Amino acid sequence: MNDQPRSTARAGGRSARHAARSAALPDHLRPIRPGMSGGALNLLSQQDMERIHSAALDALERIGLADAPQSGVDYLVGAGCILGEDKRIRFPRALVEDTLARANRSVTLYSRDGKTDLELAGARVHYGTAGAAVHMVDVMGREYRDSTVQDLHDAARICERLDNIHFVQRPMVCRDIIDNFEMDMNTIYACCAGTYKHVGVSFTDPSYVAPAIEMLHMIAGSEANWRERPFVSNSNCFVVPPMKFATESCLVMEECIKHGMPVLLLSAGMAGATAPSTVAGAIVQAVAECLAGLVYVNAVKPGAPAIFGTWPFGLDLRTGAMTGGSGEQALLTAGCAQMHRFYDLPGGAAAGIADSKLPDMQAGWEQMCSNVMAGLSGLNMVYEAAGMHASLLGFCHESLILSDDLIGQALRCVRGIEVNDETLAVDQIAQVCLGGSGHYLGTDQTLGRMQADYVYPALGDRTSPKEWVEKEKPDLIAKAIARKEAILAERSAARFDAATDAAIRAKFNIHLPA
Amino acid sequence: MNDQPRSTARAGGRSARHAARSAALPDHLRPIRPGMSGGALNLLSQQDMERIHSAALDALERIGLADAPQSGVDYLVGAGCILGEDKRIRFPRALVEDTLARANRSVTLYSRDGKTDLELAGARVHYGTAGAAVHMVDVMGREYRDSTVQDLHDAARICERLDNIHFVQRPMVCRDIIDNFEMDMNTIYACCAGTYKHVGVSFTDPSYVAPAIEMLHMIAGSEANWRERPFVSNSNCFVVPPMKFATESCLVMEECIKHGMPVLLLSAGMAGATAPSTVAGAIVQAVAECLAGLVYVNAVKPGAPAIFGTWPFGLDLRTGAMTGGSGEQALLTAGCAQMHRFYDLPGGAAAGIADSKLPDMQAGWEQMCSNVMAGLSGLNMVYEAAGMHASLLGFCHESLILSDDLIGQALRCVRGIEVNDETLAVDQIAQVCLGGSGHYLGTDQTLGRMQADYVYPALGDRTSPKEWVEKEKPDLIAKAIARKEAILAERSAARFDAATDAAIRAKFNIHLPA
Repeated sequence: MNDQPRSTARAGGRSARHAARSAALPDHLRPIRPGMSGGALNLLSQQDMERIHSAALDALERIGLADAPQSGVDYLVGAGCILGEDKRIRFPRALVEDTLARANRSVTLYSRDGKTDLELAGARVHYGTAGAAVHMVDVMGREYRDSTVQDLHDAARICERLDNIHFVQRPMVCRDIIDNFEMDMNTIYACCAGTYKHVGVSFTDPSYVAPAIEMLHMIAGSEANWRERPFVSNSNCFVVPPMKFATESCLVMEECIKHGMPVLLLSAGMAGATAPSTVAGAIVQAVAECLAGLVYVNAVKPGAPAIFGTWPFGLDLRTGAMTGGSGEQALLTAGCAQMHRFYDLPGGAAAGIADSKLPDMQAGWEQMCSNVMAGLSGLNMVYEAAGMHASLLGFCHESLILSDDLIGQALRCVRGIEVNDETLAVDQIAQVCLGGSGHYLGTDQTLGRMQADYVYPALGDRTSPKEWVEKEKPDLIAKAIARKEAILAERSAARFDAATDAAIRAKFNIHLPA
Repeated sequence: MNDQPRSTARAGGRSARHAARSAALPDHLRPIRPGMSGGALNLLSQQDMERIHSAALDALERIGLADAPQSGVDYLVGAGCILGEDKRIRFPRALVEDTLARANRSVTLYSRDGKTDLELAGARVHYGTAGAAVHMVDVMGREYRDSTVQDLHDAARICERLDNIHFVQRPMVCRDIIDNFEMDMNTIYACCAGTYKHVGVSFTDPSYVAPAIEMLHMIAGSEANWRERPFVSNSNCFVVPPMKFATESCLVMEECIKHGMPVLLLSAGMAGATAPSTVAGAIVQAVAECLAGLVYVNAVKPGAPAIFGTWPFGLDLRTGAMTGGSGEQALLTAGCAQMHRFYDLPGGAAAGIADSKLPDMQAGWEQMCSNVMAGLSGLNMVYEAAGMHASLLGFCHESLILSDDLIGQALRCVRGIEVNDETLAVDQIAQVCLGGSGHYLGTDQTLGRMQADYVYPALGDRTSPKEWVEKEKPDLIAKAIARKEAILAERSAARFDAATDAAIRAKFNIHLPA
């Protein structure tokens, strides 16, 4: 029966595997893709979520939010909110429930070239950068230095080349540009000139929105093009937790909505400082604040695209300093993701933050913990997923590059376990065991799935100790540096055509060389 | 209303936090403990699990297992199995279902001093070492060298001091001991002399069990003491996948059962080589093989303590080499954990394996991915959770030490999110926002939870970039080396009393110096 020599069968398997590997897979057969659905992780029961919802409604009705700008007061009171003598705006339950019933259930975040649009809906998961780091991590020199517009542009160029980074919200501040207006304009330029993927920015002043939109119209080719496919969204820190509107940011938000720019309603409380220290309490407050934001957005323009951005952060209570690499952070983010699904609203939160200063083992475990839990919880937008160190103060290009492997692995977990007659494989087991080769390596079923089911790291090392020595013990960070240098040695493909670039530079003081 | 100056309130909070921190917590209030219940991660639906169960029953009935020893054939046929003309033993569905109904629902793995007994039941999670690495990782020299009995003893001593390592299954082979009998005896000695925690070993020959038990009776003080609280269990690779009994290991297993030693029914197929390449198929085969083992154990002695050890491993299909650090591995293990809960059987599987050769960023993300997913899936015994590199070929003391932080973080995630009136904190939010300090840092609720809710890393770094520079940029690996040296500078507290030690040494050739 078992008449085929085992060694021959395996050698045949090996050459067949090599042949299979060299054939490129069609896109729909890739093992991982943006927008795969999570949701297998449910840290909260249905009753837990109902209690969190009810507590958030309580907080909105009893406590409300202070410090809305006058325009916001008008919008909100017009919608049915109550302005108290203490100047706090309170939200009747029915108003919040009505808004939830009418709010958009999905948001499309467009790419500039249409190739990497993101459909935020259900439990579809996307990973990308975000943040406002003020330092660049120099891994060779083990130094933190001020981040620059060139660093930001380089980050966008690197993201453009990484399959598992799905969007580019600006992760760091251009500290070499002193003027705030120039910084905001150059942030848009540096990001969009580096990547076609969806870009996120954050305006510091409401008066900057109109000129920024002018630049975006130029990049898009026309206002109509921009409004049809807005490829930049704005991150609005519209609240100063606990339970206060951020007056200026609310005005920025109103401007963005008017110009057709999707907004991220970002509530960034710190559990134990500006939010309750309990995971559940921090989620309640973030949900309450974002519900307030949702009412606000829908009062400005019903159905305007908004992302429910409950971003509670963790705190090291021993020191009072922020920490983003903890298990508590992973729980905060995963719990928020579940609340987004509870509401069936497109949502985002922060994960992948390392407290470690360098891309070391600690950074690896910190980044994976919250990233994989966020994905398994079905978070639509996993912000700050790559490159973030020192509890958000530092950004690292090499770490960003390595995150492509890390997030690829997380995405494989999000994809989960397919169960059907073929994958259960009883017939295959019978075939192999009863008179077959006794081995699965060369079977058609194994060969057919070696690319469609398995994710292989680009820089992660899987050699045996013997091969590792033969390859002169490759260093992970050195490989990341080499990859970075190779990417940055090429000119960005996402640069604007010469006429557009000249027109932008005539209008704005662009710091990046042409 | 808000008449207390904010800076004073916060300073008061800080000193109060310092006071709270210095008070040691009673054990039941520690934020994380062995045996916390997981189960929030469910990658398989109920229907998926029923299909896997049904497929495993199919495989047992149609394909069965080859190569049982004669004693095993007798036990199994006596229990109702069918011996085919092809010498394969097939398992009628009713027999398997009956065994499942009668098998033990929990196993206690005893510690030697009674302080760290493990109750395997439900979704209770425990992390520990395991494996058979043949190399020791020298992180300073970036070298792989042969592992020795001293390395094994040192690993046990380090585990004894790490709160989040709950058991010590021998993670590496004493390659400096050539004789297999002496190696097995010295493995027991080296582990038990290093830790009071539950120890796991793996005998290479059935004839070694009786003398090993003699040593264990000496360590326990008497046979009665041993049988009352067996503090060593045996890992039985009782199958050679696919679907063949490992003849010798089955005989070892029979011996262990007779001597009151709990057994781990370990099925270690490699998906794509000795098991189907699909995650579901590899789980089906592992479940089928372990069900066969369960029938075997219960035929030898009904209700004998056995751990359902579905340990499928991943493979890099490009090279045919094993990989344990992948997303596919995390899925295999998490899926198996769910099947253990489906059967309500105490179970274990492998997680925490790094493919990386050194404790670098890759090792961090690889170890966290499968460790946290195993815990969230409610795996009773997370084997190989710490220190394992090069896809199980290398063990690293420094990585083991760092795993205490990594697993502590995973355990915090396993604990999950408590939702009740206190944690929802609406009253606290109201108090802080409406006339309070506007800040949670100094509140009683925050202070009261800073130790009970939050896990702080021992070696992981959370300093700001500024503090980090002031501390001269501490290196994670250097800190782990220092911790290792401090632990190993002390004599092991778990060493046997002089008379017992002398008696053991008179009877066995113990390689470790007295």
